[in-house]
Amino acid sequence: MKKNLIAAQSGGPTAAINASLAGVIDGAISSNLIETVYGARYGIQGVLNEDFINLSEVFEEKEKLDHLKLTPAMALGSCRLKLPSLEKTEIYDKIYDVFKKYNIGFFVYIGGNDSMDTANKLNKYFSEKGEDIKVIGVPKTIDNDLAMTDHCPGFGSAAKFVSTVLTEIVSDALVYNVPAVVIVEIMGRNAGWLTASAALTRECTGFAPQLIYLPEVVFDLDNFIEDVKRTQTENNCVIVAVSEGAKVADGRYLSELSSDCKTDTFGHKYTSGAGKFLENLITERLGCKVRSIELNVLQRGSGHILSKDDIDSAFEIGRAAVNAACSGVSGKMMIFLRTDKEDYEYSISYCDLDMVANFEKKFPLDWIVPEGNDVTDEAIKYLKPLIKGETATPMKDGLPFHFKF
Amino acid sequence: MKKNLIAAQSGGPTAAINASLAGVIDGAISSNLIETVYGARYGIQGVLNEDFINLSEVFEEKEKLDHLKLTPAMALGSCRLKLPSLEKTEIYDKIYDVFKKYNIGFFVYIGGNDSMDTANKLNKYFSEKGEDIKVIGVPKTIDNDLAMTDHCPGFGSAAKFVSTVLTEIVSDALVYNVPAVVIVEIMGRNAGWLTASAALTRECTGFAPQLIYLPEVVFDLDNFIEDVKRTQTENNCVIVAVSEGAKVADGRYLSELSSDCKTDTFGHKYTSGAGKFLENLITERLGCKVRSIELNVLQRGSGHILSKDDIDSAFEIGRAAVNAACSGVSGKMMIFLRTDKEDYEYSISYCDLDMVANFEKKFPLDWIVPEGNDVTDEAIKYLKPLIKGETATPMKDGLPFHFKF
Repeated sequence: MKKNLIAAQSGGPTAAINASLAGVIDGAISSNLIETVYGARYGIQGVLNEDFINLSEVFEEKEKLDHLKLTPAMALGSCRLKLPSLEKTEIYDKIYDVFKKYNIGFFVYIGGNDSMDTANKLNKYFSEKGEDIKVIGVPKTIDNDLAMTDHCPGFGSAAKFVSTVLTEIVSDALVYNVPAVVIVEIMGRNAGWLTASAALTRECTGFAPQLIYLPEVVFDLDNFIEDVKRTQTENNCVIVAVSEGAKVADGRYLSELSSDCKTDTFGHKYTSGAGKFLENLITERLGCKVRSIELNVLQRGSGHILSKDDIDSAFEIGRAAVNAACSGVSGKMMIFLRTDKEDYEYSISYCDLDMVANFEKKFPLDWIVPEGNDVTDEAIKYLKPLIKGETATPMKDGLPFHFKF
Repeated sequence: MKKNLIAAQSGGPTAAINASLAGVIDGAISSNLIETVYGARYGIQGVLNEDFINLSEVFEEKEKLDHLKLTPAMALGSCRLKLPSLEKTEIYDKIYDVFKKYNIGFFVYIGGNDSMDTANKLNKYFSEKGEDIKVIGVPKTIDNDLAMTDHCPGFGSAAKFVSTVLTEIVSDALVYNVPAVVIVEIMGRNAGWLTASAALTRECTGFAPQLIYLPEVVFDLDNFIEDVKRTQTENNCVIVAVSEGAKVADGRYLSELSSDCKTDTFGHKYTSGAGKFLENLITERLGCKVRSIELNVLQRGSGHILSKDDIDSAFEIGRAAVNAACSGVSGKMMIFLRTDKEDYEYSISYCDLDMVANFEKKFPLDWIVPEGNDVTDEAIKYLKPLIKGETATPMKDGLPFHFKF
């Protein structure tokens, strides 16, 4: 007997999470084990609220999937609801009732660390109950910090946006022939992958950004000022890429050195202002022209500039998730394995959700130079293929137009 | 006897100023009155320093002009040097000596209000001296605040970047089903044209941004809070576009209400932080989720997303400048005249530099709604054609590659 599938999206938006959703829908529509594909609005919250969209109906015209694939952010919406420990059964029982009511045999959750925790808990709950409901996680995060997978869908497009606008920030900074420092603050609370992608910009500019600071290495204010001064002797224009999560030796974020900070619902410290702090520090200590730029949410939903590799592979990993579920796999997160490092080839596989839920994969310390202010060639080799290729953004009257339900 | 031409760029960067330079070079290379085309590095400063590039040589392969045309920022570099009044002849005499030495008969200065002042003074100096040196200004500014011309090259691409990333900011803000306010701070110190272009985003999103505040209207903090509260009753997600130059009734910029501010070399107040100020105000007064985003320099050099109309017309007006100079015109700035408002057709003409130098064309008050928090349909009709069409950004290994000398 055919069962139905629920797909949902969770965590922060990326430019590729809809491509994965499109892959899931494509896989599910093609499967002869699946009757109806439902989309839950606003993540697991949509399951609890029985807030579903019949995706089989919406995507009867399959061309619409191409439009969804190239639409940034999350067409189904997201939530930040974290499920409690399994002993608190009430919410799990409620989800189970909804799954029964809608004859759900498959649940695909597209998200980051916290979403994999949700998928993991649900899988354990269903297993313990002896229910044949397959739960699969599909990774997504611009932070690229999920364990086990070579990289995460969404990261490549974010890295492409970061490195692209950096080429333009460098050109902008070069127009005046005067010493100037530009500090670009890049997302990635605890993992420096996205900030490291700033190094790709050098493939275009030849020299900048010259200084790159990741959260994996302690940030030293005096060393930073010395780095800037030394770089200024080589070039008028010093471009600095710094992670929003850069921390000094006592563990405080740079932003905490000058201002208060907020906490999100997961207890993560919400940081911003590392760039602004360093801007002020340079004004104070060096007195030269300085500007800070916070790339903010632009970097996580840049639909107008996508990595084709990212979007295509995000679609494929979504499709593969459904295929895995249909072949009986559950409690797994889909992963990319880089099978050829020289020519960048990858295959799609899966790993236990236990091995990814709540873990953060940091940027490797041996890919950071000993001075702590740049990444190595090995890092660039890893990053380079992930931003490759362009997609044709759907445009109308000079503006992107996004898929909407 | 053939004479030589100097082209130079001045003021802040835009995404289209190199397209105008490409047009000037194309026009000059085609002219039988012009021998050699020189480019002065870093604006008029390059003339004083005799820091020239032989553009005739560089662009012997004409295909390179297509590359230059699509490269943002300023290939020749810029300066912020303001010429003194004409009585202080020393610097003018020096420029004159260089012009004589290089047999210059034509000078084309591509820039904004201040650059037109420089061009105007030089033209007056040469006229008074009875020298046959033609001086022509070519407009450029993302602020769109030059008088006499329908619009300024560079504005269309900046407006396209602003309205494009706003579509993505709106999608990003919509992923969580909770009340949220996003404030986007847009450039334009005294003229609200670029902030107004945020209204184009509604053509894509259907509803947001709902609130738009230009510097032409006094910003009232209480009215703003009321606007946000009222909008929130209609939609969870309130998107606000605010000019960096928004001012309260006593003339202070929003940023001055909470922090110090710097002054640039022209005595313009350098403002930033209007968005951050309003973010804090909303936290204080409404306590809801709020984020501010400063588009910063990204909006003035977004080479990866260009308005084809802007780039093509920037090239044409550069070419037309040389044609005008060769037919004996001097002391003029090139302008666009919109000849058909319904179907957006334009012609290229010129006006006296006296009529544009040091003037700022404000956004028309009758294109702002009486409440002061949005623009009218008439404004949207004016703006819409300026962002139309896409160009193919030259890419290499997933990144834009810019023309460099």
